[in-house]
Amino acid sequence: MPKMINNPQRVVDEMLHGFYKCHSDRIAKTRHPRVFVRRGRKSRTPRVGIVSGGGTGHLPAFIGYVRKGMIDAVAVGNLFEAPSAEVFLEAIRQADQGEGVLCIHGNYPLDNRCVGEAVRLARLEGIRVEHVCANDDVATIAEDGDRSASRGLAGEVLLWKIAGAASMAGKSLEEITDLCRRANLNTRSIGVAFAACIRPEVGVPNFEVVEGTMEFGIGHHGDPGLSSYKMRPANEIADLIMEKLLAVYPEGEEASVTVMVSGLGATTQMELYILYNRIADILKARGIRTSQSFVGNYFTSLDMQGVSVTLMKMDEELERLVAVDAESLLG
Amino acid sequence: MPKMINNPQRVVDEMLHGFYKCHSDRIAKTRHPRVFVRRGRKSRTPRVGIVSGGGTGHLPAFIGYVRKGMIDAVAVGNLFEAPSAEVFLEAIRQADQGEGVLCIHGNYPLDNRCVGEAVRLARLEGIRVEHVCANDDVATIAEDGDRSASRGLAGEVLLWKIAGAASMAGKSLEEITDLCRRANLNTRSIGVAFAACIRPEVGVPNFEVVEGTMEFGIGHHGDPGLSSYKMRPANEIADLIMEKLLAVYPEGEEASVTVMVSGLGATTQMELYILYNRIADILKARGIRTSQSFVGNYFTSLDMQGVSVTLMKMDEELERLVAVDAESLLG
Repeated sequence: MPKMINNPQRVVDEMLHGFYKCHSDRIAKTRHPRVFVRRGRKSRTPRVGIVSGGGTGHLPAFIGYVRKGMIDAVAVGNLFEAPSAEVFLEAIRQADQGEGVLCIHGNYPLDNRCVGEAVRLARLEGIRVEHVCANDDVATIAEDGDRSASRGLAGEVLLWKIAGAASMAGKSLEEITDLCRRANLNTRSIGVAFAACIRPEVGVPNFEVVEGTMEFGIGHHGDPGLSSYKMRPANEIADLIMEKLLAVYPEGEEASVTVMVSGLGATTQMELYILYNRIADILKARGIRTSQSFVGNYFTSLDMQGVSVTLMKMDEELERLVAVDAESLLG
Repeated sequence: MPKMINNPQRVVDEMLHGFYKCHSDRIAKTRHPRVFVRRGRKSRTPRVGIVSGGGTGHLPAFIGYVRKGMIDAVAVGNLFEAPSAEVFLEAIRQADQGEGVLCIHGNYPLDNRCVGEAVRLARLEGIRVEHVCANDDVATIAEDGDRSASRGLAGEVLLWKIAGAASMAGKSLEEITDLCRRANLNTRSIGVAFAACIRPEVGVPNFEVVEGTMEFGIGHHGDPGLSSYKMRPANEIADLIMEKLLAVYPEGEEASVTVMVSGLGATTQMELYILYNRIADILKARGIRTSQSFVGNYFTSLDMQGVSVTLMKMDEELERLVAVDAESLLG
């Protein structure tokens, strides 16, 4: 499949140039070419800075969420590759208003290492900084429930929304960190792919989805799924997804959830809504109230064909924060 | 390519069910299953109603733009097929607050016929109604500049934004109609495809893009392009697009434009920004100011691989109206 690029080695830089030219009313450059900040992030009353970052290939994540009520500064990595500690460190410095900084990142070995080092260095500079590691992928939760090796999926988008809203509301670094940790523990996601993505510098799909099958439990970096199923109708795909996600919610318990159905890049929005149609029915049948729902391309994997579904179990405080309008995505 | 659907004959209805379940805080059903309206569209001071509609397969168009500051009521058709006159008529009725209704639609034979009939019937019912026909596709402008057979492309999104903002500002039906006609005449688009879309009820691509080539001047309905080019780097694609779009702007004239780069469904946002990076440079080199720019999936053709680029030449009034924030797309 031909790609609309110039040089596979230059896709990240050229994307960033285009992004900046398009959104320079909203974002600003910094002294580091891989760190961008939100204009107007400094309010009269200093508040906690929110940082995130990760590899490129997930638009609108991460840089698209540098918006009022979400991320203040972003660290941009190469394609599917964590930004370096130096990049995260500069993002932390840029976000700091004296009230501390929360850095939210996905649970991947290189991201963890780079964020860890950046946090250490920032603290040496006297910046108060905490980090929350998103690990919502149920496909990689250990049998005993241990999530230390679970990957982050689209749940992170909701963490940014919660952290951003809490920061705008004047909450402290400790409060926002606790909120995000709680929200993360309440969040479960799973990814399903019908075709793998194509990395422009490679030019062929990352893995092969056998015709007539789908991959369950795929990651965000072009990694194959953990199990393969025969392709089936959308409603049955929804059933399978929800069975895995709802397994962790105690049956019969009064609950409400926020739902995110995110296309992985090349799947039509029509299909996403057809899937959501069944998901909404399943939640209703289970007596679970849907607090808010988001259907769209929120966290992609280049041009992967497929979808990730995220459920975040709500409590009153989380519900209030997710409901706060973040800045328009329409521009 | 497997599609996440249940029954190819039911995709439109199931998509609408899912859409409604997701957005029932914002949209409401009507007595016609193919007409949806925006909740809270009736302000204390009656204002002009804005209607649009068309075939399904273009999400977020059309129903996704039933939002504050854009469309008040939408007529939903089958896949790539205009809604009937009856559906448009009901949307017009629903949008009417006594100040008249403007119906904006793409220039396609069936859409024109159905809107025309609906307008005639609505007037018989005593509703003041006008319509504006979007025909921004430069690939289908006649040699002598006649646009009567030119197709509508993504330019329509900007017309909704202008009409919505003008209605909210209390302008009259005549004023908004004039504004939209002027905006439409100032608008030029072109579409480029690298691979055709797949209609779920057919299951194979609508047309074949020969390997190593791209189709220039494609329509929004899976129609092949008017000319075929050898595939080339993104910058050269941008050069070719802008050569065609800028041909209509007198050289050297002081001008400013709004730019929309819309993915057609399966193209990564990374590629869209790489293309925009060059487009912004070309405009700058030509001395044309970019008033606003939009890069994203604004008007798709199912899972077509490709992009449409729209330029709307601005004047002071249009610029003010496009700049009015429409309701958040993030929810």
